Amino acid sequence: MSDAPVDAVVAPRVTPVTSEFDRDTAVRAREPGVYEARLSPGWAIGKALNGGYLLSVLARALGEALPHQDPFTISAHYLTATVAGPAVIRTDTARTGRTVSTGSAGLFQADGNGGETERIRVLATYGDLAGLSDDVRTSAEPPAITPLEKCFRPTDHPDGTQSVPEMARRLDLRIDPGTSGWALGAPSHRGEMRGWFALADGREPDPLSLLTAVDALPPTGFELGLTGWLPTVELTVHVRARPAPGPLRVSVTTRNLAGGYLEEDAEVWDSADRLVAQSRQLART
Amino acid sequence: MSDAPVDAVVAPRVTPVTSEFDRDTAVRAREPGVYEARLSPGWAIGKALNGGYLLSVLARALGEALPHQDPFTISAHYLTATVAGPAVIRTDTARTGRTVSTGSAGLFQADGNGGETERIRVLATYGDLAGLSDDVRTSAEPPAITPLEKCFRPTDHPDGTQSVPEMARRLDLRIDPGTSGWALGAPSHRGEMRGWFALADGREPDPLSLLTAVDALPPTGFELGLTGWLPTVELTVHVRARPAPGPLRVSVTTRNLAGGYLEEDAEVWDSADRLVAQSRQLART
Repeated sequence: MSDAPVDAVVAPRVTPVTSEFDRDTAVRAREPGVYEARLSPGWAIGKALNGGYLLSVLARALGEALPHQDPFTISAHYLTATVAGPAVIRTDTARTGRTVSTGSAGLFQADGNGGETERIRVLATYGDLAGLSDDVRTSAEPPAITPLEKCFRPTDHPDGTQSVPEMARRLDLRIDPGTSGWALGAPSHRGEMRGWFALADGREPDPLSLLTAVDALPPTGFELGLTGWLPTVELTVHVRARPAPGPLRVSVTTRNLAGGYLEEDAEVWDSADRLVAQSRQLART
Repeated sequence: MSDAPVDAVVAPRVTPVTSEFDRDTAVRAREPGVYEARLSPGWAIGKALNGGYLLSVLARALGEALPHQDPFTISAHYLTATVAGPAVIRTDTARTGRTVSTGSAGLFQADGNGGETERIRVLATYGDLAGLSDDVRTSAEPPAITPLEKCFRPTDHPDGTQSVPEMARRLDLRIDPGTSGWALGAPSHRGEMRGWFALADGREPDPLSLLTAVDALPPTGFELGLTGWLPTVELTVHVRARPAPGPLRVSVTTRNLAGGYLEEDAEVWDSADRLVAQSRQLART
């Protein structure tokens, strides 16, 4: 900090309040199409950074690179484990149109030998969600989910705070008792996981945080009696509307556990009962 | 053809029988990672080449470029309309591993000004389906579908053969009467389409033809009372097993028609009651 001249007007220092999500998904343009990020260990599950969080970072960069700002449909392939710390995102525009644009992005980190390794590759089409018509004929119904106040927080786990993944501290996550049997050693053997999602610091949802929401719940694999890590091979998210303020309901289903892989289908419903996002991921068991 | 020496043994010319699908999805390596294709008008629906057919062509090229040959999860973004005729596919390897590899591919066609335009961009992870464990715990059940012999052929349409899309002539497609109301001017207003899929010349299914199968049925939009073209923006397919020989059952569902877009979720079941492929596409209405 420099010394202010004695006669200068010293403006009060106003520190803008930035949410944890925005701070930890921020990107800085190094040059056109190339962005720097600092990935936060605050979004780790065990040793690995959460795939949805990483997708949000990549999506922010692509939204800067493309003339349209909202991801409509975005697919990520996770190549090798991404670690906390610096990362570079290199984008490539495939096509820019009047209503939508398409591009790719790769997230790179130093490989320890002076070079860089691509950790994640993304392909996405962006548009303007606010410009969509309000003709909504969704036939899907919101999930039957236990009211928020009756759901379990990760800290309600019998092991208490010691078993809470670091990322869970960034969230206000509430898991439906109907999909919590795994936490008590009694998995349901149904491929289902349901819960409420909000950010712990109260930041309201937006299209980028939806990309984190679809991958934030415990794995359906836990209810299917699987243990250990179930790494995501690929995750595709359709963002269909800007979410209304308030907590999100997330419902995840697995129906095809086979051959050492499983799919997780997630739906995200906002407080206005709108189906704002749908995703499917392929995970390895 | 050169003149054979008089005393040479002339081997009988054996012409291998190539299926229409293999002939029309063939690719030829121009140089490492770059392939040429000749896209066939035989796979058109109206003026547009079918998105699943195009995905099969791209997938064949990527399978040549990567060390693993079976698409496990593949996403395509359709940028501008692809026309019949020559195309170049340029691939880029993101990572090669022991069990899976990941790469991108772009399909380019001449733009009429001496350059080329990217029509479709793909991102995919490949593996070896035959190497997967046979531990199958799929909880999904095959669709309740009318027996094949009681389903409708496209030529059963009251308009007869004049309304049959060109691509339908490459297929033995049978549509469930329960999802055929649209053809008689009485759409069900349920977002469902079900049918049986086989190739007209009897070529058995394989992982590449599954990519065509997921996009081969009439659009669910027809049963929802929508008319006109419903272009695919993005299509993601999970191929979960090599299909057994015999006809495939395809069941498609739409639950989120909203804002000028809809999703189509397809499941493909083989003759051994295995859920061999799952897909989701985002289409514009």
